[in-house]
Amino acid sequence: MPVHVLRLGHRSFRDKRISTHCGLVARALGAERMFYSGEKDKNLENSVNGVSVQWGGDFRMEYTENWIETMRNFKGKSVHLTMYGIPIQKRIKEIRRERNILVVIGGEKVPPEVYQISDWNIAVTNQPHSEVAALAIFLHEYFQGKELERIFKNPKRRIIPQERGKRVIEV
Amino acid sequence: MPVHVLRLGHRSFRDKRISTHCGLVARALGAERMFYSGEKDKNLENSVNGVSVQWGGDFRMEYTENWIETMRNFKGKSVHLTMYGIPIQKRIKEIRRERNILVVIGGEKVPPEVYQISDWNIAVTNQPHSEVAALAIFLHEYFQGKELERIFKNPKRRIIPQERGKRVIEV
Repeated sequence: MPVHVLRLGHRSFRDKRISTHCGLVARALGAERMFYSGEKDKNLENSVNGVSVQWGGDFRMEYTENWIETMRNFKGKSVHLTMYGIPIQKRIKEIRRERNILVVIGGEKVPPEVYQISDWNIAVTNQPHSEVAALAIFLHEYFQGKELERIFKNPKRRIIPQERGKRVIEV
Repeated sequence: MPVHVLRLGHRSFRDKRISTHCGLVARALGAERMFYSGEKDKNLENSVNGVSVQWGGDFRMEYTENWIETMRNFKGKSVHLTMYGIPIQKRIKEIRRERNILVVIGGEKVPPEVYQISDWNIAVTNQPHSEVAALAIFLHEYFQGKELERIFKNPKRRIIPQERGKRVIEV
């Protein structure tokens, strides 16, 4: 199931860590690619793509200069996550029927067109919280927990889960 | 079910936004209180507690000078979220039996004692991603989705979910 993510309006200084978290969550929870718009930020790309090199898998984060084109060119349906949308629990079954999904997450100011172009505007609670959390819960609901079992190909290191402490092996 | 959250090692400059996101996620997804250790940060407390004033409910974020004491004094079980731990899907049923839970989330460097004192060390995937996402998925799994239906008492404003666009009413 190819799930892509689009992060809108990245600002290199202010959003560095939040956008990094979005990228890592997209990767860890089963998305295949993430686009971001706003300010191009080589550091952001390097931190996220460097995690794929170390921990495996084909996930890639890349810049898009034109987010509207990215949305329009996507061959599938788009889901915009927003606290103003319809609660996820009311639409997730319908969304799960789609195999190709572009999950759109906003930055500080979301252009009004996003609400119009998206196939769904979906809320993970109608409370203010976090695009990182909204993305995580959306992917978890979409993949129904199967994403937690995902294996990442060709890692350089891997964790052996422990009751206490840390164990990492070089592969 | 009283669920509290403890965020370790906050640094006011570097962690401001991530800790704010953790606080808002804790509130939105059904925790009752969040403690944070590290640097005391009035701005952080004000942003998170200000959301409770606007959007309702009794959630409070507060500083703790001594996180070990906070863990030891907590009347219930503690769950430390860490990528090195046992996968959540293997322990969540056991954890759900507990009514009082302290969810511990780390900052950059987690003191080794945390792994020892915690009743569980739990991983939301064994991949690097985000404490915001780990907290969100943990709470979602713990409450089994019921947290998405939560109603916040005495809000000043409330969202009326829309297919497109935004609708907020003053209450």
